[in-house]
Amino acid sequence: MATETLLPLELIDKCVGSQIWVIMNSGKEFTGKLLGFDDYVNMVLTDVTEIDPAEGNTQLPKILLNGNHICMMVPGGDATEVLEDE
Amino acid sequence: MATETLLPLELIDKCVGSQIWVIMNSGKEFTGKLLGFDDYVNMVLTDVTEIDPAEGNTQLPKILLNGNHICMMVPGGDATEVLEDE
Amino acid sequence: MATETLLPLELIDKCVGSQIWVIMNSGKEFTGKLLGFDDYVNMVLTDVTEIDPAEGNTQLPKILLNGNHICMMVPGGDATEVLEDE
Amino acid sequence: MATETLLPLELIDKCVGSQIWVIMNSGKEFTGKLLGFDDYVNMVLTDVTEIDPAEGNTQLPKILLNGNHICMMVPGGDATEVLEDE
Amino acid sequence: MATETLLPLELIDKCVGSQIWVIMNSGKEFTGKLLGFDDYVNMVLTDVTEIDPAEGNTQLPKILLNGNHICMMVPGGDATEVLEDE
Amino acid sequence: MATETLLPLELIDKCVGSQIWVIMNSGKEFTGKLLGFDDYVNMVLTDVTEIDPAEGNTQLPKILLNGNHICMMVPGGDATEVLEDE
Repeated sequence: MATETLLPLELIDKCVGSQIWVIMNSGKEFTGKLLGFDDYVNMVLTDVTEIDPAEGNTQLPKILLNGNHICMMVPGGDATEVLEDE
Repeated sequence: MATETLLPLELIDKCVGSQIWVIMNSGKEFTGKLLGFDDYVNMVLTDVTEIDPAEGNTQLPKILLNGNHICMMVPGGDATEVLEDE
Repeated sequence: MATETLLPLELIDKCVGSQIWVIMNSGKEFTGKLLGFDDYVNMVLTDVTEIDPAEGNTQLPKILLNGNHICMMVPGGDATEVLEDE
Repeated sequence: MATETLLPLELIDKCVGSQIWVIMNSGKEFTGKLLGFDDYVNMVLTDVTEIDPAEGNTQLPKILLNGNHICMMVPGGDATEVLEDE
Repeated sequence: MATETLLPLELIDKCVGSQIWVIMNSGKEFTGKLLGFDDYVNMVLTDVTEIDPAEGNTQLPKILLNGNHICMMVPGGDATEVLEDE
Repeated sequence: MATETLLPLELIDKCVGSQIWVIMNSGKEFTGKLLGFDDYVNMVLTDVTEIDPAEGNTQLPKILLNGNHICMMVPGGDATEVLEDE
């Protein structure tokens, strides 16, 4: 059972190079490929889609997201294409 | 009486592998099994239900929650199935 | 006069095992017995009442409150039964 | 001119034992005597008045305010009785 | 080109003794002379004007602003009297 | 594939001397040339435009932005003139 433990930074580290889905505290949502992160959970994403059902999605080539304002990260890009890594 | 003391990280550590109920500062609520956490109270949950009375619940296989935005954690998954650990 | 000084963590430490009243930044309010805390002012409460004048109070056996989102702590449980400790 | 410099913690330190006026990020306001503080600007106040023009003031014997949520501190208790310390 | 680099704390340090314009995250705005600051970007201002177009400006002799809640700092006091320091 | 990794501070460091687009947590947006930054992602910008579709843009010669309140940074100034740096 001990092998089931998964630390937050381990989960993020497994996602480098893969699609993730990030929900900011303000409600903004992004999907993109995770290029890197640091101990503050700041993240660099590439090939980013800002998801905005009201005004339409926006494509951005590369962004930095401040870890302070990231509320939740879901591996796999969005709820329909989730990563099963164990 | 001194044995009654329970540090925050001790409480979280006891919950690894068990169901918890997490309420974010934004009002979002999640239940799921706690896979791991770190000193910033970032948490990895698996078999997650995002509880949304208005729009219906969402199932997510695995998420990272930013400790900055976690307001409250209740051991036991929800108010109706609480963990009595002493 | 120097003896009047009271550091924040000293005040919290005096409250371990006693009733406190906690007001979160979001407006949520809790009373309960303080079981423990850490340097980030994260707190573990037991025998908790979440005070909600609009929807009614909720009883919770044990919770973790994130120090980041605690706005104010009042020793004594609520405004009517305050602790006079000097 | 160099003597005009006043560091934040120096200003707070000068206020220990005196009346201060604290405005929280949420808009809550308190006046009271500062009993102590720490490096996170957490503060312990005594003989506190929570100022609430809408619902009336509340007296509290002793409170802890989380430095995270303190927006502004004015030496002197309120805008009408300010401390002139130079 | 390397000489063009200006670190955040260098910019603030240059402003000690000068007028600055501070915009808080809540929307509050202050102008005043910067007396000091620390690594958390907490600031002490003197001869302060709280700018409030709706309810009128307020004069305050000395205040502490919590760096956590400072959103933006503009050297020069306000947009009309900016500091040109290079 | 390992060379694809890009750490947050590496991305910011590449942007020093270039145009960036910064979106604050409050919704404020700025474009300008990045003069410097620190480990807290505080940033100094020069030749700044505060973008405000409602009230019109404002020019500011130099500002400090608090990293705490920066939500997102996009290299390249705005969505229409993005930096392709690999």
